[in-house]
Amino acid sequence: MGKLAIVGLGLIGGSMGLALSKASSVKAEIVGYDRDYEVAQRAQKAGAVQSIAPSLEQAVRGASLVIVATPILAIRRVFDEMAPYLQSGAVVTDTASTKGEILQWADELLPSDIHFIGGHPMAGKEKAGPGAAEATLFQNRPYCIVPGVRAADGAVHSIVGLAEAVGGNIFFLDAAEHDAYAAAISHLPLLTSIALFKLAKGSSAWPELGGMAGPAFYDLTRLASGQPEMSQDIFVTNKENVLHWLDRYILELQKMADMIREDDREKMFRDLASVQFERDTFVQNPPRREEQGARAPMPSSAESFMSIMAGSLWSQRSKDLEQSMEERQKARQAEERLRRRDI
Amino acid sequence: MGKLAIVGLGLIGGSMGLALSKASSVKAEIVGYDRDYEVAQRAQKAGAVQSIAPSLEQAVRGASLVIVATPILAIRRVFDEMAPYLQSGAVVTDTASTKGEILQWADELLPSDIHFIGGHPMAGKEKAGPGAAEATLFQNRPYCIVPGVRAADGAVHSIVGLAEAVGGNIFFLDAAEHDAYAAAISHLPLLTSIALFKLAKGSSAWPELGGMAGPAFYDLTRLASGQPEMSQDIFVTNKENVLHWLDRYILELQKMADMIREDDREKMFRDLASVQFERDTFVQNPPRREEQGARAPMPSSAESFMSIMAGSLWSQRSKDLEQSMEERQKARQAEERLRRRDI
Repeated sequence: MGKLAIVGLGLIGGSMGLALSKASSVKAEIVGYDRDYEVAQRAQKAGAVQSIAPSLEQAVRGASLVIVATPILAIRRVFDEMAPYLQSGAVVTDTASTKGEILQWADELLPSDIHFIGGHPMAGKEKAGPGAAEATLFQNRPYCIVPGVRAADGAVHSIVGLAEAVGGNIFFLDAAEHDAYAAAISHLPLLTSIALFKLAKGSSAWPELGGMAGPAFYDLTRLASGQPEMSQDIFVTNKENVLHWLDRYILELQKMADMIREDDREKMFRDLASVQFERDTFVQNPPRREEQGARAPMPSSAESFMSIMAGSLWSQRSKDLEQSMEERQKARQAEERLRRRDI
Repeated sequence: MGKLAIVGLGLIGGSMGLALSKASSVKAEIVGYDRDYEVAQRAQKAGAVQSIAPSLEQAVRGASLVIVATPILAIRRVFDEMAPYLQSGAVVTDTASTKGEILQWADELLPSDIHFIGGHPMAGKEKAGPGAAEATLFQNRPYCIVPGVRAADGAVHSIVGLAEAVGGNIFFLDAAEHDAYAAAISHLPLLTSIALFKLAKGSSAWPELGGMAGPAFYDLTRLASGQPEMSQDIFVTNKENVLHWLDRYILELQKMADMIREDDREKMFRDLASVQFERDTFVQNPPRREEQGARAPMPSSAESFMSIMAGSLWSQRSKDLEQSMEERQKARQAEERLRRRDI
């Protein structure tokens, strides 16, 4: 039985532990570490980890898989501190909202015999800490996988197994893609939510506005209750993409202002009806990229996940996986071109 | 037993009917009308109304209270069409998201012996129709009351009783206040939500963006699935206020862009932490204006609501109510001054 270490036992690390503890494909010993001992204790009590390590060193020593679930900017320090104690061939992953800088840090700070594969489960809530953790947090949510340059295919496959074990839908990306897309789909919503709350709260009419607020205001400002550390780290490590999408969002708002000012009711109705139709279609049937590689024939991702946990890294690349990776690569290049033109 | 008519039996009209049918203080016969007969039938089947009137005329004839729950721009036509058939002394209210134009239409089109009191329950969801209606939709939500110029105090009081019967928290405003505040707290969120969805959907990277979307994107674009007719009517009837708040929102976003660009991490953290604290405080303890008039001693709002339903309009103004109205008036003037300076 292999050892799996979770570093950082807040909402995400705690939920990861709970989900992995419940997954039938996971037979590993799950060891947790948090620099806040009280947080670690609460996570253990909730059943997220079997035991608590007294130090980062002891958490990662002998672990086949290390999941780093700390705030983004803390990851650099964690990489630096744990590097000497990682076992050769170990797989390291993270759960952070940005990927560019983290892959650089992994490249710089982790030994060359360590396989780093970035991970980003697209899930979360505005509540923090292991008390908010849930085994089902990642269920049916996209789980982005961003392999590091030196990661062997077997290591990638084992992270696919991990993501599947917690119920996620696999989504392969490179770091640049990930950060550009996450800026649009996750970091911009965060920003718009914070700005909406700040605007209302900053108004001298706030006692009226707050008292009159209905579900729309509550729902749309939900992300303003998120952890300030998380938001800050996102804005710091994905600055250019966030600013880019924010500019585009302001243009979109200005287009809507023009539409309202113009007062062409038929045009406005048609526009709003098409938005409604497209949003409903999206919710009923979200676009989902077929990741053939994620379901390569043999060994299965779960087996691969298990095999890495047993220390035997699966290194033979299946033909199907190779083919699908080539296809993905081509598709990605095409998308990249589109993206450059469009974004 | 009086007659209560609900005109328009979609989400709001249907929910109103369900809530009133369940309220112990309401002993009226609830008659419904919808220009779409199939909608009316579904509402009746769901228990929202006891009977369906075959025409608007027959719905409002003999009714002590008429609730107009149609789309905003349709209200003008409804007022015009039902005016000849309203019984003298009847109370008319609506449930629309804007109030300025509606109060003007009421003044123009309804007979002078009719008491119009605008209503706006701050509730709703992106699903439409009587099938989405819920008896609890208005529970613990602000219920804005905007009395028309000719409305007698007893009529106002009866609408307070109505709002309380469906579980709302009373919020008195004049039409200008209402529309300015609703633009900030309800119509701007709607706009930001639509723009966020349009931006992502309009990108050539949409298949990626949509596939990668997590809860943040779903939640923040929820309002883009709202009825196009409702959004359009809001933008048309509250144009200036919406454009004003949209401008201010763009400024707020630009301030956030500056903050991100500046990259002063401590300042950013403090700012984000204060937003989190204030949002949490708001959710735990939303500002709530004390409406003493809404809970005036005798007769109670429920009794007044009942008395109007019985056709005996309560017309004697209680001293407490008078006093509280004067106080509200003063407070409102003070707020108005603040608002002019700030908004």
